Amino acid sequence: MRQAGRYLPEYCETRKRAGSFLQLCKNPAMACEVTLQPLARYNLDAAILFSDILTVPDAMGLGLYFTEGEGPKFERPLREEWAIRDLTTPDPYDHLRYVMDGVCEIRRALHNSAPLIGFSGSPYTLACYMVEGASSSDYRRVKTMIYDRPDLMHKILSVTADAVIAYLNAQIESGVQAVMIFDSWGGGLSAAAYQEFSLQYMQRIVAGLIKEKDGERVPSIVFTKGGGLWLESIADIGCDAVGLDWTIDLGEARRRVGHKVALQGNLDPNVLFAAPDKIAVEAKKVLDSYGPGNTGHVFNLGHGISQFTPPEHVAVLVETVHDYSKGLRKI
Amino acid sequence: MRQAGRYLPEYCETRKRAGSFLQLCKNPAMACEVTLQPLARYNLDAAILFSDILTVPDAMGLGLYFTEGEGPKFERPLREEWAIRDLTTPDPYDHLRYVMDGVCEIRRALHNSAPLIGFSGSPYTLACYMVEGASSSDYRRVKTMIYDRPDLMHKILSVTADAVIAYLNAQIESGVQAVMIFDSWGGGLSAAAYQEFSLQYMQRIVAGLIKEKDGERVPSIVFTKGGGLWLESIADIGCDAVGLDWTIDLGEARRRVGHKVALQGNLDPNVLFAAPDKIAVEAKKVLDSYGPGNTGHVFNLGHGISQFTPPEHVAVLVETVHDYSKGLRKI
Repeated sequence: MRQAGRYLPEYCETRKRAGSFLQLCKNPAMACEVTLQPLARYNLDAAILFSDILTVPDAMGLGLYFTEGEGPKFERPLREEWAIRDLTTPDPYDHLRYVMDGVCEIRRALHNSAPLIGFSGSPYTLACYMVEGASSSDYRRVKTMIYDRPDLMHKILSVTADAVIAYLNAQIESGVQAVMIFDSWGGGLSAAAYQEFSLQYMQRIVAGLIKEKDGERVPSIVFTKGGGLWLESIADIGCDAVGLDWTIDLGEARRRVGHKVALQGNLDPNVLFAAPDKIAVEAKKVLDSYGPGNTGHVFNLGHGISQFTPPEHVAVLVETVHDYSKGLRKI
Repeated sequence: MRQAGRYLPEYCETRKRAGSFLQLCKNPAMACEVTLQPLARYNLDAAILFSDILTVPDAMGLGLYFTEGEGPKFERPLREEWAIRDLTTPDPYDHLRYVMDGVCEIRRALHNSAPLIGFSGSPYTLACYMVEGASSSDYRRVKTMIYDRPDLMHKILSVTADAVIAYLNAQIESGVQAVMIFDSWGGGLSAAAYQEFSLQYMQRIVAGLIKEKDGERVPSIVFTKGGGLWLESIADIGCDAVGLDWTIDLGEARRRVGHKVALQGNLDPNVLFAAPDKIAVEAKKVLDSYGPGNTGHVFNLGHGISQFTPPEHVAVLVETVHDYSKGLRKI
């Protein structure tokens, strides 16, 4: 998940200077600045590239914009068959050059003090925004296309998967040391539709990724919010780690797929609104749930951090996780 | 789920006459009228009481109101400890008399042509609205209370569970022949919090329900949207049937808990936006997924029907399910 964000006053200041969220994403120096802010404040084990998943469809020509309080929107959502047939894969070094420039700048600034994680949205999640044109409460348009015109949906997903492969490989070539694929909306699909319209394309992406760079493995992490029911099939697509939201017990997830993949997660971000002692209790429960011998566990929130989170509560969480997991590792 | 609703022009007409959604709920004659509308139009196997889950907290004094386009709200959300300590269980024959009058009227009008299903929200789902004061995208206030002041949350849930028991038993005494408990938001809880803050209270309700009326079993159905991971524990609380959303494969659900409970579900309501032939294909997939010998399967949508659904598409669904499931029953 994003580490930087509106819960940090220093982020709000940079964003104000940038003029808008999108200008912040598109300015490599500022994207670098906000990427590093959480690391200056907290004792974190990795940096997460600051960007937005919708830069890819923006590069595909859909015209991303943000309106205050309403979230992301596209000027040209995919509604017509001709527009879908015309979709092409953008060159990441051209239309998404600003992301690659940001990656280079962040790596230089990090001086190998922490690894840098890059990311992309999953094809299905990107398609949701591309077809709906904005966030949606029911994904009616995208579901209608799935059931009524699966051929068109597959065309969108196929082009988008190729775009994501090129995009993530360009991030890796530019310096990110691990990549995460975010499937925010796949969990809203039926069991069968998830396999056909989301997982299949993430599998294609994982297969197309650069696996090693400068003699080091570049791990891939796949996260489907609400995907707990389908864990075995997710762990089977060739990724190195699976991200988990907080609805699944981590110990159960470990029993089901821990022999195949590392597990990342899974504290409910809303725990961060509780008092510090309660935050520590809940963080320890997550670590205990995975259990001893936890080198296959990457502690994380189960989804994005709320803009209303008190920054000092995040410090409590980071300290607790470091202190307590050291003990568990020794067992 | 609700059968009547804004997708039916005859419903919109009655609602207009009622003045508002809440006045419609509170007028027994009109609630009876809209309850029967879907049965006049479609060959349905049961009638579903038309009402709203939030009538219970309204009867508890929170002041339910609706604003156009923004959904339900409470004038007095539960934010203060004293207000929570002051909560009491309302007498359903007093504050919710209009629901019981509606039930009596519907039963008279039905002449035993179809059974009538009553319902209530789950304590946790009701508490979400009671604490947030409206719908929420993150349930931040209710989660903060869970992690910070679990004692207060348990107080709300305990009083609400008692209110729901009294409410559902009054519905049964008045004539409903099955009851459903809707847990719309339990699926947003962590695995552990779900057990403690949602399932425990639904178990208490099921234990407190009237089990038999006039020599007939009164079945109870429990539905947690997004509860597929926790199916075994849901099937274990003593209910007769478990409702399922579309994210779980029905065959898998049958293998996991089909020996214990009947299963209700689970077509994605968005399938109803596809062309009629596609609707038939998807409905058959659901029936095939449960498989032959399907007397333990109650076909249903996996969640509420969208207001934008073409009414003639629902007719296609109902006909397909009747025709096709007859064949499966014989196998």
